[in-house]
Amino acid sequence: MIKVVAKQTVKQDKINSFLASAKKLVEETHQKDSGCISYDIFQDLQHAEVLTFIEEWENQDALDKHMASKHFKELFPYLNGLLEKPGEINCYKKVV
Amino acid sequence: MIKVVAKQTVKQDKINSFLASAKKLVEETHQKDSGCISYDIFQDLQHAEVLTFIEEWENQDALDKHMASKHFKELFPYLNGLLEKPGEINCYKKVV
Repeated sequence: MIKVVAKQTVKQDKINSFLASAKKLVEETHQKDSGCISYDIFQDLQHAEVLTFIEEWENQDALDKHMASKHFKELFPYLNGLLEKPGEINCYKKVV
Repeated sequence: MIKVVAKQTVKQDKINSFLASAKKLVEETHQKDSGCISYDIFQDLQHAEVLTFIEEWENQDALDKHMASKHFKELFPYLNGLLEKPGEINCYKKVV
């Protein structure tokens, strides 16, 4: 299992736009991407502009296919354009 | 539900010490802390020194009690002493 934490700091005035498109990406990912265990968006309790994708994938192949998918390729650049600073993305394995 | 992501960058020569103590904290948390949905440690696939606690708590009260617990108060300062730089801790709510 691969866990992805993609922490995004969104421009203050773009939070709603980000959420609307991110919601679409979540829906399409859930519908279309096999090997997706979970794929959700979380908002920091103190900093509303920090919106983080926390994902679980069965394996690297499933994650690679997701990142090559039409819906990801279409929406990811748009989401990136709404950021205050570059996203912070970590791919993890569980150790404890 | 509250999701906590506590991203820690550990000194290269302290990774094993960190993991040993963190493992103890995970075990005690699982055993003793009610309201803990999940509490695990993940290692970045590219950067072995990045060790991140990803936790789920039923509510803020459960998280507060955890952070006031004997096992947390004993182990957290020790773990902090093994870090290369201050940890990055985000507490989240699920939005999508």
